[in-house]
Amino acid sequence: MGIGLTEFLSIELATEHPSVIPISVFIAILCLCMVIGHLLEENRWVNESITAIIVGAASGTVILLISKGKSSHILVFDEELFFVYLLPPIIFNAGFQVKKKKFFHNFLTIMSFGVIGVFISTTIISFGTWWVFPKLGFEGLTARDYLAIGTIFSSTDTVCTLQILHQDETPLLYSLVFGEGVVNDATSVVLFNAVQKIHFDSINGLTALRVFGNFLYLFFTSTILGIGVGLVTSFVLKTLYFGRHSTTRELAIMVLMAYLSYMLAELFSLSGILTVFFCGVLMSHYASYNVTESSRITSRHVFAMLSFIAETFIFLYVGTDALDFTKWKTSSLSVAGTLEVSSVITALILLGRAAFVFPLSVFTNFMNRNTQRSESITFKHQVIIWWAGLMRGAVSIALAFKQFTYSGVTTDPLDAAMVTNTIVVVLFTTLVFGFFTKPLVNYLLPHDESHNTGKRSAPGSPKEDATLPLLSFDESTSTNLSRAKDSLSLLIEQPVYTIHRYWRKFDDTYMRPVFGGPRPVNQPEC
Amino acid sequence: MGIGLTEFLSIELATEHPSVIPISVFIAILCLCMVIGHLLEENRWVNESITAIIVGAASGTVILLISKGKSSHILVFDEELFFVYLLPPIIFNAGFQVKKKKFFHNFLTIMSFGVIGVFISTTIISFGTWWVFPKLGFEGLTARDYLAIGTIFSSTDTVCTLQILHQDETPLLYSLVFGEGVVNDATSVVLFNAVQKIHFDSINGLTALRVFGNFLYLFFTSTILGIGVGLVTSFVLKTLYFGRHSTTRELAIMVLMAYLSYMLAELFSLSGILTVFFCGVLMSHYASYNVTESSRITSRHVFAMLSFIAETFIFLYVGTDALDFTKWKTSSLSVAGTLEVSSVITALILLGRAAFVFPLSVFTNFMNRNTQRSESITFKHQVIIWWAGLMRGAVSIALAFKQFTYSGVTTDPLDAAMVTNTIVVVLFTTLVFGFFTKPLVNYLLPHDESHNTGKRSAPGSPKEDATLPLLSFDESTSTNLSRAKDSLSLLIEQPVYTIHRYWRKFDDTYMRPVFGGPRPVNQPEC
Repeated sequence: MGIGLTEFLSIELATEHPSVIPISVFIAILCLCMVIGHLLEENRWVNESITAIIVGAASGTVILLISKGKSSHILVFDEELFFVYLLPPIIFNAGFQVKKKKFFHNFLTIMSFGVIGVFISTTIISFGTWWVFPKLGFEGLTARDYLAIGTIFSSTDTVCTLQILHQDETPLLYSLVFGEGVVNDATSVVLFNAVQKIHFDSINGLTALRVFGNFLYLFFTSTILGIGVGLVTSFVLKTLYFGRHSTTRELAIMVLMAYLSYMLAELFSLSGILTVFFCGVLMSHYASYNVTESSRITSRHVFAMLSFIAETFIFLYVGTDALDFTKWKTSSLSVAGTLEVSSVITALILLGRAAFVFPLSVFTNFMNRNTQRSESITFKHQVIIWWAGLMRGAVSIALAFKQFTYSGVTTDPLDAAMVTNTIVVVLFTTLVFGFFTKPLVNYLLPHDESHNTGKRSAPGSPKEDATLPLLSFDESTSTNLSRAKDSLSLLIEQPVYTIHRYWRKFDDTYMRPVFGGPRPVNQPEC
Repeated sequence: MGIGLTEFLSIELATEHPSVIPISVFIAILCLCMVIGHLLEENRWVNESITAIIVGAASGTVILLISKGKSSHILVFDEELFFVYLLPPIIFNAGFQVKKKKFFHNFLTIMSFGVIGVFISTTIISFGTWWVFPKLGFEGLTARDYLAIGTIFSSTDTVCTLQILHQDETPLLYSLVFGEGVVNDATSVVLFNAVQKIHFDSINGLTALRVFGNFLYLFFTSTILGIGVGLVTSFVLKTLYFGRHSTTRELAIMVLMAYLSYMLAELFSLSGILTVFFCGVLMSHYASYNVTESSRITSRHVFAMLSFIAETFIFLYVGTDALDFTKWKTSSLSVAGTLEVSSVITALILLGRAAFVFPLSVFTNFMNRNTQRSESITFKHQVIIWWAGLMRGAVSIALAFKQFTYSGVTTDPLDAAMVTNTIVVVLFTTLVFGFFTKPLVNYLLPHDESHNTGKRSAPGSPKEDATLPLLSFDESTSTNLSRAKDSLSLLIEQPVYTIHRYWRKFDDTYMRPVFGGPRPVNQPEC
């Protein structure tokens, strides 16, 4: 098997199945990775991502030895593979599995972290690198490169932290970290694409505004497309009631429509990542009530599984790529230089994240000061949120490859240097920061607090369900004026809660009857 | 969207996502196809395959008009796409969903239909075409081509019939049609590959023997590899007990190992189709007992869904391909000539299938004459079995493309003629024969017989379970001699039943404790 391995190291569609060997090897390693990840699950330090990276690096070493130093790759990196096949399931699953109640309840906080946060972080990292890199003798990057670097290193990887936090024990913290992780991924990709469209030859005061406008355009059109596809799917499933016949067909429709939403977004040059995310949210909010019980169980697990495989795949790839000596040799930086530059980037990541987590948390607490229902974000929680977003992962790698390589290959020393830097930063943050996540969380949220085996904070949600129907609007029209006044003052005092309440009302009255959902909470009264 | 459509009509991995448009269009049509298929499900004449072909042809027409007669394709046919991505899920699912008790109980009958039948059918079609084609003025095909044509048109497509038969009402018939369908697919692909290896320059009396030897080698090594991978997966799942942690991981392991078995078979130049089939059988026999309840439900639906999508995809493709005028223009035959040749092939298919279904059924009935437990195959059943295998489908198309094109493109008039002939035969048999399947089955198995809403014949299986423990061998050694004599005479009188009983014994005692399975039937006695 060793003989001729290097000849087959590219994934390519051709008649004589040259892709069979790399795919077989890669799948075998993926399986190995999952078994090892399972065995190490109880371990204090390690997590899935770290396992995958280490297994990847080990496989890379073996392949390097077999191919006598020629290559450490099993598969050549392919942006399309990543953006067309691996990323959509991850993001769709995030949207599908998100606890919508918590997510929408903390919607504004999550959005401020996920959107404003990325802008702040991008600004700090872009300016920081632009200021420091030339001082380290690392010159030649363009303004577009610096802006791209800002977005590349603003996309976080919260998987590691989410594996440790428990949704039932610290619901607010969990939903903030999870929500931010998702919105952040989407924002950085959209911002990255917006940066690509800047014309740097005619730069002026309006450029920043134009980037922001472009961002907003992409953000809203993509969201609307995702919502549209999600609603169409729900409507089709509800109207035709596929469950009468087959779970298989329902599942197929859901999977295909989810994928179609992503493809349509790409077709119209929108952000597929946002579209597929909102498509996932809508499908889980409406469509999953229109299908049979077994379809519901199955779809949840299918999307989780696809996402899991895609994630492991990516980390495994990053692991093998770390040993790619071609890039190291091409790089304009020495090993010491790479370490210097990577340290600067890591420091800027720490700084850029601190610069928005703490102020925005304080601001959120201030906004929610009048709401008894919302817990405030304690300082300990702020530290965990800050830490949770320090790891850099798959999206960073993918964006870096998109910016600095042509289908994974680069001959430019500067570009090669940036790719190796990205890999070093991803490895360092995932391995080192990832290592300390469990101890940190256990230290800040001590064991006895985080081990009152679940269900303790659960009473919060049924209570919420029980109070909502009391806010019913189905009364005489005479009270409408005073109500409107009340609502307005409520909107100012408790903006998030009020918006959420109106949305629930609208959803129960107009949306659910058409697109499907559980029977409204005040139905049982009849 | 119409503008520039033809420029994007090839599926290719490239940086600027040229595959986005065809993939979007194709997925949208797939969804449409499923919705239409669902709406027509109650229809008397139509089935899934026919719907997909018609929708495909309609889309082909639209694309033909948009591209002003240049092309009717959305995706260029790719053997690798078919053999590496579409076929494995279909075959794996067949193995995974097969009712193992029925399958193994009728094992010898199924194997004789599926293996000996393909040999007989291939012989008749090969000799028939070799004898008739030159008389029609269709000359120039080589001996290898004729043999390939034999195997191409010996692979059946039983999907259509299986949609109509009911497992509970006619269990024997269902398991025979289903089992033959699966084994037949595998056999024709293996035989096709064996034919490819013949050296026609040094042909002699031993050639047929060598093909048969090659076939047996491929058959057994592939089966053993599939069994091996299935057992390893079961063992891993049982030993590590993934269920303790996550359904996601269990599912991922099952999906990846299934795919790995196929890839490994391709790697060692074996028959992936046989390997993945037996891997599916083993996984459903052992592994699915080692996973959580939700994994069990999910895995069943996931595999069914993947198979369903792949099947619809293939028929949709065949539909669009029917209008590919390039091939029609390249063909050495006129339209009338094509119809003549196709009619000959269709007649040979009818003959070739009759030549083994009826004799082998009689033989099976003769072998089972002493067994009270086995029903015999009535003449009506024989007619249905014969009819069920007349449709030609995806495998025929794929093999024809493999033999007569280079990645879906051909410039040779003879090859183009054979491809168009194959498409015409597939269309004709699927549409015309498919159309009459429901009426035929309803005529032969009248409504009142086939509508005693299920469960009627179910008592048969629990009885079987209850009698088996009575045949226990855990008695004193003194009775062993007389038992051995009894067993031997039993083996001669009721070969199938006896083999099956020994296998059950072995399975319960040695295999299930190691690889997992339901607790043995005699366990509750303790």
